[in-house]
This record gives sequence, C-alpha cells and structure tokens, in this order.
Amino acid sequence: MPARILRHEYEVLLDMNSVPLPTAPGSSIQAVLWSGNCLRLLDQRLLPETEQWLECWNAADVAQAIHDMVVRGAPAIGIAAGYGVALAALAGEPLEPAIAQLAAARPTAVNLGWSLARMQRRAQAGADAAALVVEAQLIHAEDVAMNQRMGELGATLIKPGSTVLTHCNTGALATGGHGTALGVIRTAWRQHRIASIYHTETRPWLQGARLTAWELKKDGLPACMIVDSAVAHLMHVRGVDWVVVGADRIAANGDTANKIGTYQMAVAARAHGARFMVVAPTSTFDRACPDGGHIPIEERSAQELTHFKGLALAPEGTHAYNPVFDVTPATLINAIVCERGVVENPDTAKISALFESTP
Amino acid sequence: MPARILRHEYEVLLDMNSVPLPTAPGSSIQAVLWSGNCLRLLDQRLLPETEQWLECWNAADVAQAIHDMVVRGAPAIGIAAGYGVALAALAGEPLEPAIAQLAAARPTAVNLGWSLARMQRRAQAGADAAALVVEAQLIHAEDVAMNQRMGELGATLIKPGSTVLTHCNTGALATGGHGTALGVIRTAWRQHRIASIYHTETRPWLQGARLTAWELKKDGLPACMIVDSAVAHLMHVRGVDWVVVGADRIAANGDTANKIGTYQMAVAARAHGARFMVVAPTSTFDRACPDGGHIPIEERSAQELTHFKGLALAPEGTHAYNPVFDVTPATLINAIVCERGVVENPDTAKISALFESTP
Repeated sequence: MPARILRHEYEVLLDMNSVPLPTAPGSSIQAVLWSGNCLRLLDQRLLPETEQWLECWNAADVAQAIHDMVVRGAPAIGIAAGYGVALAALAGEPLEPAIAQLAAARPTAVNLGWSLARMQRRAQAGADAAALVVEAQLIHAEDVAMNQRMGELGATLIKPGSTVLTHCNTGALATGGHGTALGVIRTAWRQHRIASIYHTETRPWLQGARLTAWELKKDGLPACMIVDSAVAHLMHVRGVDWVVVGADRIAANGDTANKIGTYQMAVAARAHGARFMVVAPTSTFDRACPDGGHIPIEERSAQELTHFKGLALAPEGTHAYNPVFDVTPATLINAIVCERGVVENPDTAKISALFESTP
Repeated sequence: MPARILRHEYEVLLDMNSVPLPTAPGSSIQAVLWSGNCLRLLDQRLLPETEQWLECWNAADVAQAIHDMVVRGAPAIGIAAGYGVALAALAGEPLEPAIAQLAAARPTAVNLGWSLARMQRRAQAGADAAALVVEAQLIHAEDVAMNQRMGELGATLIKPGSTVLTHCNTGALATGGHGTALGVIRTAWRQHRIASIYHTETRPWLQGARLTAWELKKDGLPACMIVDSAVAHLMHVRGVDWVVVGADRIAANGDTANKIGTYQMAVAARAHGARFMVVAPTSTFDRACPDGGHIPIEERSAQELTHFKGLALAPEGTHAYNPVFDVTPATLINAIVCERGVVENPDTAKISALFESTP
C-alpha cells in the first residue's frame, strides 16, 4: 500500500517537475503529478468528500492504482502508465515485466497501450532512466497541450450567450489537465461565450456528480446538475445550444462510443435543435473500425446498479442490464473536435481527409 | 408515533375487511389494509430492505403517514385519506378539521382532494361512521377494479412476444392494488403477451429500483433494470415494443405530466419506432387544462440529487435543477388507456368524445 499524503502538500511538488507542464488557463486542477522520484495521484475514488493523494514508488504501485480506479479517464491512465515505466527504469527493474503488468491493469483503455508502446520504443532505442522520465513527462505535457488546442478549436463553435450541457467527467481529472469536452467548456467560459453550464449526474458511477461538479466548483465555474433523465425536459424548457461530450472510441465514419447516456442525449438534442459536439484527441479514432456497429460495448455487473457504497438500492436478486457505453451515430453529431482540427457533420471521407492532410 | 407490526401478521387482517376487495390476479401485493378499526400501511420508505407495517388509529396518524411518504402514489394516497376520514368518524372526532388536516398532508396529489370531497359529501348526506367506513372501502375497491379494467384494455394493445419498458412505480404500491401501467404489464404477462420486462431505476427517488423491482420480484415476474440514461441504447440494441407509463395529470388535449424522464423516453421511443402507452384513470384527466404548457411542474430541492441517505454524492454547494415531472406531448403518445376505454393518437376531440359518450 503506497503512503498517502495530504492535499496541501502537493503544490510544492510542482517545482520538482523537470519538464514544465503547459499551464492550463482556467484550471488549477492536476490529478497526476510527477515529483522527481515518485508519482502522486489524486485518489478519485474518494472525491468529492476527501482530497487524498496516493504515492506510487514503482510500476506495481501504478498498475494497482490504475486497476483500482484511483486514476481514471483514458488519457490520465495513459499518462500514469508512462510514469510507471519511468519508475521501473529508475529502480533498475527489468522493463518488460513492468510494462506487461501495467498493460494488464485496465486492458480496455486504448491510451494505456499507446503510451506503453511509446515508452517501450524509447527504451528499445537505448533511452536511460532519465530519458524515460522525460518521455513520460512529454506524454503528459503533450496531452495538456492537445487539450488546450481542442479547447480553442471547440470554443470557436460556441456563440456568446450559449447554454451548454455535458455528460460524465472529461476534465482535468480524466486527462493530463484542462480536459477534452470540459476543456472546451473551460476555454469557452474564459472567452465569455457561455451563459449557463449544465451537467448530468451520470449514473451509475456518478462521475458528473462526484467529479465534474468538483472540478467546476474548484475552478469557480458556476454549473447546475440534472438527473440523466431530465436532459430532454431541460432542452424543452430552458434550451440548450450545445451538448459537449468526450469519446472512448471514434469509428472511421465518425460513429462515437462514449459513456452510457450519450446516445440518448444526442437523440434528444436532434429533437430539440440543440447541437452536438464530440471532443477527443486523434488517438481516440479507430480507423480500422468502419462504423459503430463494430465497436464492442462493455457490459458490467448488475451490482453497480443495485448497490451504492454497500447500500442496497434494489431487492436482493434484481436483474440489471448495465452497458457502460453506447454508440452515437455520426449523423447525430454536428462536430468532432480533435487537436488536428474540427470535422463538421462527420463522415468517413472527411475524417480520412483530416488524417491525410495534417501530420 | 403509531405502533409498528411485523409483516407476517398482516394476512390475518384481510378477513376483517367488511367490503371484500376484488382479487388482483397476478398480484399478491396490497400496501393499504383496513383492519376494521385501524388502517395499516406498508412503509414504502423502508422498501426494499424492510417490510414493515405502520398502524394508523386516527386521521392525524394517516395525515402524518401521507406527509412522510409512508404511502405514496396518487391513487394510494386518495384511498388512505378516505380511511382517515372513516377513522375520525369512528372516534367521534369532528370531521371538518380531520379533512382539512388530511387535505394539507400532500397538497399536490389530485386524488387526495377527490377522495376527501367524496367522503365529505357522504358525511353531509348523513352517513354515520359505519357508512363512512364502507364508503372508504368502496373508494379502495373501485380503484382496484378500475386498475383491473385498465389492465385488460391495455393488454389488448400488446402483441404476444413483446418487450415492454416502464418507468417509476405505478403498481400495487402506488394504488389500491394491481396498478396502472404496471397493472397493464401484469395482465399482459398473465396473458402470455410479454417476452421481456425492463424498468428504469428512476432517479432521483429510485422508485423503479426500490419499488417496481420489489413488486415484480414478489409476483414472480422476471424483469431487468436499466439506468435512466440507457433507454435509447436499449431500444437500439434489444428493441422495445411498448413503453408503458402512468400519469400525474393529463391535459384536455392528451399532453401528459408524469415522473421526470417520461418525456425523454417518449422522444427515444419515437426515434426507434417503439410505441408509447399512458395508463391512468379518468380522475387523472384535467379537462380544464387545455394543454401541457399549462401544467405546473414542481421543482424540488437540490439535496435530492446531491445526497443519498445522508451520503454526499456531489461536493458541498453543488447546484442542481430538480424538476419532479415533465410533460410528454400528445403527439408522442400512441394510446391513453383509462377505465372508460382506449384513446389512440389522443387529441382534444377524442378525449372529449370519451368523456361524453360514456358515464
């Protein structure tokens, strides 16, 4: 069990980074911190009640923290794994077993494999421990920079005075900093484009209630939470200009897998004339996957619906269907924003063009 | 505080009813029981963990139980209030203050006022305590009979092999017995018309998880729960033939107010070719209200979203918009089922015709 440190201690750690992170305008939040010889993770399982940091001193600590969802969000998991490889190198551990252990921590997160492959290539090219630390910091810094770029691109689509609605948590907690969909909202807010921010609570894991509300409060952005079932009613009575969400996987034609509930929001958005924006880096695109019908949807245990923190919400033996993700067809998406640009009314040709025209 | 009795004691009380209730085929559940000199209520606040009965010996006990949501569901509240007036008469209490106290217990429930007015008319016509007991039992028995009638009418719309989806709790717990929307599902199940039953968990009060799952399990109907945000995904991947819901108020044109989330389900149903059925007795119609735009929507405290059983789900100070109901326009409703008949593709003329052509 890694040692725990208190929240107020963490600011001093920032000085110990050898690669300075891009500052994240509008957000003070970073959930992944490199101290020079250990990785510190804000324990997201305990939010919003408790802000507690966990120290990871080796790859096994990092793998455990990823597995236990101390750190969550595909980009943040990839960043943590990169530091895990650096820790193994600093300790003189053999890298292959460490990488295998990290890869097994959450096999479904695509960024995890991407980050580990990048660290492995550097090691195979002869990088020493210090160079691997720098590589992990670069992965981290590049993620923040991409998020800031996507924030700028996405914000240009949002007219001043807009009401936005987001789902789940796609912010600084889920990434290296700033966020994807929440990064667009942060940037647009700073540019005075947003009149009202709404977010769902996001059952069953309540990432909206626990994490997005916490982030927005930290950064002083006023926001209002609704239950997931109130999206269409909100659109009808108060109006929503943009639904802004992240993505777990984007198929070649633009069909997008994201947290359960995203598709229902897109259906409601189309029925009410609200526009729908997906924000994700190009690493989220799976161009080998032709369309959403080919994206496997993870189903998890009924217990996630029938129990909450050990309390029974439903009678013993209640059956539940618990898909974690759903697929929003490209036809319901007005814009996909990635660090390379914006694809409006996405389709296979436009997405191909984006990848071919820019490095 | 009324005395509490254990669950296994309640069966013997059924013999003490002087007006036999219609048996509710397919449902053994009754949450409101008259013992001859007291009213026993299944405490719905404690379900599904605990089945505990509360005894009410006078009108004040009943008013408190309604206020505290020991009994909930508009028809069940109306029935309990009728017995409350009977208890006042049996105790020789003056009836006017008792009726006023009961009326104030939950001012928004329409059936409450309807039931109290009926009891008051009987008392003013010279009914003694025994006659008022019988009147309360008639209100109760008529509600069960109406539910069984609606069950038969609604079931005829459901083709064998259908998948149905319901929202909130509209079953025996919410009524005198059998239920409205859940009554249709019970009857259709008995008639072998249903292949699969799905229900939402129904945030924020979780009536689907706590109450509908409990009822269906009690009656041996296999069912499967989903989060409220998975409705559109369920329709897309597994198919839903009918969404079957209750109503809190139906306007003259058929626009229907019901539990938050109902409108979103109707939008998703229309997008997926699923049909949409509203089941409610004629007492739920408000023909003085021309359309849904004139139905006031109750908003409740943010705390219902930010906390659960004393646990914080969101950071201190999180704002929330918590409308309890929403309005589904008549254009998204394929059928309204009431005890007088079925109105397909409802509009003002068809609803007027229903009221004018039948007693």
